[in-house]
Amino acid sequence: MPSTGKGVRGERELINLLWSNGYAAMRAPASGAASRTPRPDILAGNSALRRHLAFELKVTHKKAIYVSKEQITGLAEFARRFGCKPYLGVKFTANRQPWIFIPVKRLKSASNSFKVTPEIAAEDGISLESVLGKQTNRSE
Amino acid sequence: MPSTGKGVRGERELINLLWSNGYAAMRAPASGAASRTPRPDILAGNSALRRHLAFELKVTHKKAIYVSKEQITGLAEFARRFGCKPYLGVKFTANRQPWIFIPVKRLKSASNSFKVTPEIAAEDGISLESVLGKQTNRSE
Repeated sequence: MPSTGKGVRGERELINLLWSNGYAAMRAPASGAASRTPRPDILAGNSALRRHLAFELKVTHKKAIYVSKEQITGLAEFARRFGCKPYLGVKFTANRQPWIFIPVKRLKSASNSFKVTPEIAAEDGISLESVLGKQTNRSE
Repeated sequence: MPSTGKGVRGERELINLLWSNGYAAMRAPASGAASRTPRPDILAGNSALRRHLAFELKVTHKKAIYVSKEQITGLAEFARRFGCKPYLGVKFTANRQPWIFIPVKRLKSASNSFKVTPEIAAEDGISLESVLGKQTNRSE
């Protein structure tokens, strides 16, 4: 869970984007709460599209994001049990990039963490529209 | 969301019961967090059973529980969008009753709230085993 202002703002922004696209979405409690079970930062579903999504989210001004193996393993385990697709959502605010979502299976680990740069996100990630299952009709 | 100790304990107990029965489950943040979108107290899923559940939960020592129409409407709306079954879970601790779950459609409203007594719960509610989709093989 993000403990910073930009992390919380990023989560709320994504919750609103999900709702305005026909999804129901819920945030997890702050990480301070005692919990022995893994959980995503956001869990969302769209019954019409039969699509259920679990997100771990990272927002940063830096040039790279590191996510622990434990967090990704927990996210994958939650998704496997729940019945939803797990994604790492990243937002590099220094580059003014929009949210990019990397399917957990595509993440490459280095030692005890996963490193994601804007370049890696651009190569392995997909757009919000793709995650939501919407068609993109962009001419540019 | 429960703001009391017994409410939080009840939620954690249910989270643990869900996990030990093959579900993944997540609690909502404390009600203090700003939120303009409805959400259940607990959202749970079991991919093997293709079952997704949303719970509003009430634990009380009193003889009746009152839930606002707004809460139930929000729960139903969340469930319709997400694609899960909405339940009001009640626990009357004075009677030492276990959790009983009332499908939202069975709730009967009186003016601006829904009133549930142990008798109403016994008549309209179902057991945890039924909600989880487990077979009950009890001889008694």
